[in-house]
Amino acid sequence: MQLFIGNQNYSTWSLRAWLIFAQYKIEADITKLQLFSDDFYNTLQTVTPTAKVPTLVDGDIHVWDSLAILEYVNETYLNGQAWPAIAKDKAHARAIAAEMHSGFFDLRNELPMNCRAKRKLDLSKGALRDLARIDELWSQQVEQYPDGWLFGEWSIADAMYAPVALRVETYGIKLSEKATVYQQKVLNSSAIKQWLAEASLETDIVKEDEAGSPA
Amino acid sequence: MQLFIGNQNYSTWSLRAWLIFAQYKIEADITKLQLFSDDFYNTLQTVTPTAKVPTLVDGDIHVWDSLAILEYVNETYLNGQAWPAIAKDKAHARAIAAEMHSGFFDLRNELPMNCRAKRKLDLSKGALRDLARIDELWSQQVEQYPDGWLFGEWSIADAMYAPVALRVETYGIKLSEKATVYQQKVLNSSAIKQWLAEASLETDIVKEDEAGSPA
Ligand SMILES: N[C@@H](CCC(=O)N[C@@H](CS)C(=O)NCC(=O)O)C(=O)O
Ligand SMILES: N[C@@H](CCC(=O)N[C@@H](CS)C(=O)NCC(=O)O)C(=O)O
Repeated sequence: MQLFIGNQNYSTWSLRAWLIFAQYKIEADITKLQLFSDDFYNTLQTVTPTAKVPTLVDGDIHVWDSLAILEYVNETYLNGQAWPAIAKDKAHARAIAAEMHSGFFDLRNELPMNCRAKRKLDLSKGALRDLARIDELWSQQVEQYPDGWLFGEWSIADAMYAPVALRVETYGIKLSEKATVYQQKVLNSSAIKQWLAEASLETDIVKEDEAGSPA
Repeated sequence: MQLFIGNQNYSTWSLRAWLIFAQYKIEADITKLQLFSDDFYNTLQTVTPTAKVPTLVDGDIHVWDSLAILEYVNETYLNGQAWPAIAKDKAHARAIAAEMHSGFFDLRNELPMNCRAKRKLDLSKGALRDLARIDELWSQQVEQYPDGWLFGEWSIADAMYAPVALRVETYGIKLSEKATVYQQKVLNSSAIKQWLAEASLETDIVKEDEAGSPA
């Protein structure tokens, strides 16, 4: 199995897909491509029609898109355990995963993931609204599962929101106390520590993903 | 079970979720709300944190977002049959469903669904690129399943692309011969005919979703 990802410093969608492999110690060859480089497009065009990362190749099965990869790996290698076992939680987890997959545009555009940096930035109303929604959503889950992942056990919903926990660090964003409990849990997880360690070895700068001024 | 949808003339995401109920004759109370009206927001804020349609309420389970609803209904009421049975097709179907769920922004912005109208419009490069990708994707599936839905039997992937078949009508878009075969199959399906009949009874005009000039 081969997982194509982008720069670990910047590529949020790559991180989301990569996490299910790291959390469950599923073996895959990771191929890292530098975002927007010729090599990126030349390599990807042989494996995906959209030329985006993440893309997974498993034998003759090709899956592009983070959420599709997470669903595929969960069903094929994890017997479904990466969604919550309780039906109500599972439906909720799917709804919030879909919110991230299809939305939060202001947050995603204004605050690109940039693992190694500390920045300050003025936020638009839209980005503040996005952050307020995420704060609410994390806080509710912390009330329900105080020491846990969003739904107790780690799930695909946690993969979808992980890059936000990193952005909170980069841009020094203040969250509520409860949301901070969750954000810290993400940062202290061994999978995220591994990702950050690997990202810290990168030296490439992707101009499109640099925002804000030094903090 | 209660499914909240928007104006059938305009609401693409509502159509996607509604289709799985229509295709499989699953009973649900449909509550139609006029997009952007006070009633829309007042009603939705009691059932969803995002105040968007479609939203499904099934007992104490609330699912907002089209793709999450499709996955939920498929698992809960259809024993998984709304994804292709063949693993390779299923992975492919999930990837293209995710492409629609998270992309094709130019197409979605420039060509709002408007079932009752016939319009002409100059398309941007981005919208043409989106249409070319959809043409390619539909054509490939028509080659593989000449008389069928995208993957032979109807699947969630067909739900995701149905609104594009309607936009092709509204804006008089020329597709390749193969892609047209699929587009016509969608238009001639009884579920789409039912949706169009219901949409044709609506008289409300949503300014945000009116584009182009009379064709
Ligand atoms: N919906 C896709 C989005 C993937 C995506 O936009 N990936 C970015 C990197 S994080 C990319 O490949 N960008 C390169 C490009 O757009 O040319 C997913 O969930 O995987
Ligand atoms: N990602 C959501 C998108 C839902 C969506 O944007 N729905 C539109 C109508 S088609 C809506 O409710 N708009 C009202 C608003 O944004 O205030 C889904 O897939 O269901």
